[in-house]
Amino acid sequence: ARKHRIAVIPGDGIGKETTPEGLRVLDAAARRFGFELELKHYGWSCETYAQTGKMMPDDGLEQLRQHDSVFLGAVGWPGVPDNVSLWGLLIPMRRDFDQYISLRPCRLMPGVRSPLADRAPEDIDFVVVRENTEGEYSSSGGRMFRGTAREFVTQESVFTRHGCDRVMKYAFELAMKRPRKKLTSATKSNGITFTMPFWDERFAEIAKSYPEIKTDQFHIDILCAHFVQHPDWFDVVVASNLFGDILSDLGPAVAGSIGIAPSANINPEREHPSMFEPVHGSAPDIAGKGIANPIAQIWSGALMLEHLGEAEAALAITNAIESLLAEGGPRTRDLGGNAGTLDVGRALAEVV
Amino acid sequence: ARKHRIAVIPGDGIGKETTPEGLRVLDAAARRFGFELELKHYGWSCETYAQTGKMMPDDGLEQLRQHDSVFLGAVGWPGVPDNVSLWGLLIPMRRDFDQYISLRPCRLMPGVRSPLADRAPEDIDFVVVRENTEGEYSSSGGRMFRGTAREFVTQESVFTRHGCDRVMKYAFELAMKRPRKKLTSATKSNGITFTMPFWDERFAEIAKSYPEIKTDQFHIDILCAHFVQHPDWFDVVVASNLFGDILSDLGPAVAGSIGIAPSANINPEREHPSMFEPVHGSAPDIAGKGIANPIAQIWSGALMLEHLGEAEAALAITNAIESLLAEGGPRTRDLGGNAGTLDVGRALAEVV
Ligand SMILES: CC(C)[C@H](C(=O)O)[C@@H](O)C(=O)O
Ligand SMILES: CC(C)[C@H](C(=O)O)[C@@H](O)C(=O)O
Repeated sequence: ARKHRIAVIPGDGIGKETTPEGLRVLDAAARRFGFELELKHYGWSCETYAQTGKMMPDDGLEQLRQHDSVFLGAVGWPGVPDNVSLWGLLIPMRRDFDQYISLRPCRLMPGVRSPLADRAPEDIDFVVVRENTEGEYSSSGGRMFRGTAREFVTQESVFTRHGCDRVMKYAFELAMKRPRKKLTSATKSNGITFTMPFWDERFAEIAKSYPEIKTDQFHIDILCAHFVQHPDWFDVVVASNLFGDILSDLGPAVAGSIGIAPSANINPEREHPSMFEPVHGSAPDIAGKGIANPIAQIWSGALMLEHLGEAEAALAITNAIESLLAEGGPRTRDLGGNAGTLDVGRALAEVV
Repeated sequence: ARKHRIAVIPGDGIGKETTPEGLRVLDAAARRFGFELELKHYGWSCETYAQTGKMMPDDGLEQLRQHDSVFLGAVGWPGVPDNVSLWGLLIPMRRDFDQYISLRPCRLMPGVRSPLADRAPEDIDFVVVRENTEGEYSSSGGRMFRGTAREFVTQESVFTRHGCDRVMKYAFELAMKRPRKKLTSATKSNGITFTMPFWDERFAEIAKSYPEIKTDQFHIDILCAHFVQHPDWFDVVVASNLFGDILSDLGPAVAGSIGIAPSANINPEREHPSMFEPVHGSAPDIAGKGIANPIAQIWSGALMLEHLGEAEAALAITNAIESLLAEGGPRTRDLGGNAGTLDVGRALAEVV
């Protein structure tokens, strides 16, 4: 049987509750579609940090490299600064494994209520393709005159031709596979006048190779407004690291729940493992109660299977999610129900 | 009588149609409340650029300095690059006149339909206070290896203690004047790790002087999501230049129309003129047709009067806008009516 080697990192908070449900459904899919998942668990988390002073061992990334993919829950916990937790585990994976595509589908699922008035599932179905390695999330910057009235900090956004071109090509290819064949670019070239005009230039250049694709572009401010006013305008949206981060939280919010939004951090060339994680975080406020929505985690598992070449199994999982939501299956509080994490995971594992 | 000297710059597109209506209402208010407006018109626009190669004369800012305030329509036109039009007229005013506060009220007005389901006016009533002179809109950056595969661009965000402290103090003072006494800070210190942690530090520091104010902070991604899911959580929101730009388009979108959203660019010390302009742009698609909504412009006029010490007149204008919308007065297409720009302006001038 085909075998895929998966590193499982539940991480912190509700990640510890949602990953088991993700695995439950993945396991059911493996049995049904005849492939094997070789799992290895890594307990790396903010607790590891409390004990060892590090989020993961020094050779952590080397250990993960032995796997085809990483299946991650959530990283971060109150009391541990983000620059320790996220920059000690999550961001290094994205960077070192050159996971330059962050893929975040935004769909209004049947049976889910959008906060928008009068919107049906066919109105909200787009994908945000986020650049995931450079841009505004940079490691170049500093502070001067610390502790004085003249104090200031700087941080340099960096956009390379290499980085822009490859994420844009990926987005165009993705748009080619979708029926509407439309790609929107998020920019801010009217205000951010060194980097964003370059982004626009590269977009115009790459677009030349895809004459079948309808393109448009909006400044990020009005684009956010359009997500609320006209979500039906969008099919694939390509954005820089920061703008993609914003749009891929706003998109799921508009589509009714961040608790169901999945994400993929992909190295398309498969030179390094890709990583799959929910959009939501570790949610300390509801952690440990067994009430977190596992759908984002389970859907992230579907994205993982797709990446691993198990397209049929992936589709079976998203179909199962769709039916569960449409047909009034068990749902967690964020979706107006009172089921637990486990109930939802079990229900999905049964029908997958 | 009290006299205020106003520079009027209609600018481009619908700015030419909305400013006359703004002036009509301001004029009515002046007569009713017994002050005088000394107006001087400046035709600076993208047409000026076409004729002279410049958006405004070399001594343009010096000319504007003779006035107490600038009342602006919109700047920008297809064919003229933004770095010419905006950076040749709008941005220099914000910068040279040290208009470090951009104030953007977001209110769901009675009689206006929000795109959000089940939201009433009392649910959406907050103000975005945007830093308007530094941050992500910087003039420091560059390009290397132009035209080669190694090409890259950089742009440096700059946050000074001076710049952060003064906008935060302004926001706290504003929150003190409002019944809910709540201030939210927009951050992204988990991803943008040099500048935004500094922003958070300064916020915590300034907060110490305002123990009466309830504070919270959200990363910009989830904050955008909350604007859609929980607009009722917000009272005053303080944000950097870019984040404030995004939030102050998203806020009005959530509140039902960008066509009514006003903005003030304020130099609180009154060492330089302040500037008042709608949030919307020149809207080339509907320009010249007499159908643009003048409410954003008229409301911007109210913000101007407030800044000039004419609080009563300012309130009369916003009350007039509220009644017109609540009582089914003439409304433009963006609000589902078919009145023209002029109809709305006249109706408001009559009742102010
Ligand atoms: C035109 C543009 C530079 C401007 C900005 O981003 O500041 C506009 O979007 C605004 O919000 O006033
Ligand atoms: C945790 C944080 C650094 C991260 C990001 O901004 O990339 C998160 O918001 C996300 O979207 O994955």
